[in-house]
Amino acid sequence: MITLDFEKTGGLIPAIAQDYKTGEILMLAYMNPESWEATLSTRKATYWSRSRQELWVKGATSGNVQHVKEIRIDCDDDTILLKVEQVGGAACHTGHRSCFFKKVENGDLKIVGKPVFDPKEVYKK
Amino acid sequence: MITLDFEKTGGLIPAIAQDYKTGEILMLAYMNPESWEATLSTRKATYWSRSRQELWVKGATSGNVQHVKEIRIDCDDDTILLKVEQVGGAACHTGHRSCFFKKVENGDLKIVGKPVFDPKEVYKK
Repeated sequence: MITLDFEKTGGLIPAIAQDYKTGEILMLAYMNPESWEATLSTRKATYWSRSRQELWVKGATSGNVQHVKEIRIDCDDDTILLKVEQVGGAACHTGHRSCFFKKVENGDLKIVGKPVFDPKEVYKK
Repeated sequence: MITLDFEKTGGLIPAIAQDYKTGEILMLAYMNPESWEATLSTRKATYWSRSRQELWVKGATSGNVQHVKEIRIDCDDDTILLKVEQVGGAACHTGHRSCFFKKVENGDLKIVGKPVFDPKEVYKK
């Protein structure tokens, strides 16, 4: 039985998605108990969208789902680490492979790398 | 000028510490504006301790400081990624190298790896 501490942070805990092969950190999102259970049962990363206030199956719109290969929990049971296979090559809604594409350099932010896809094409209605 | 979105989550945003060489995720903690500024100016990972409600220079007690080699910010400006050199070989207060030493396996948690140090020795008064 696995009991996570959702209460400490008011119901949502952070989940890091890391490429299971390269170790690259792809994104960080949040989970509530419902998304945690869905991730366990479907083995597809499922978060809680804070902006839309709804269950968020990552890749449901873009097709860029995350197949969960391994799950780690931290010492305090309040952070989740997903080692995933990122379908489509990019985790970020901007089209970048990783959401962490801004590098701090000389007191400013520098964009690192180029988008893998064009968000206008992927998210068009 | 770098402006992070501390407001979305009520003043604290998550910061991931990743080994700058191996890519291993060592821990996740939180930062407020004060700890963010301290991290930038000292290049030592400095968090905000939610339990103690005070500035937390990582390693101030144990000696296991984190020298910051690179800083990334995510697409929404509300998550920090620190690529660090972990002094002492372990980031976790339990003595484990990484805080993520519990692996989900067959519906339960399995401890992965062994502690690098004995917390009773490191944190004794």
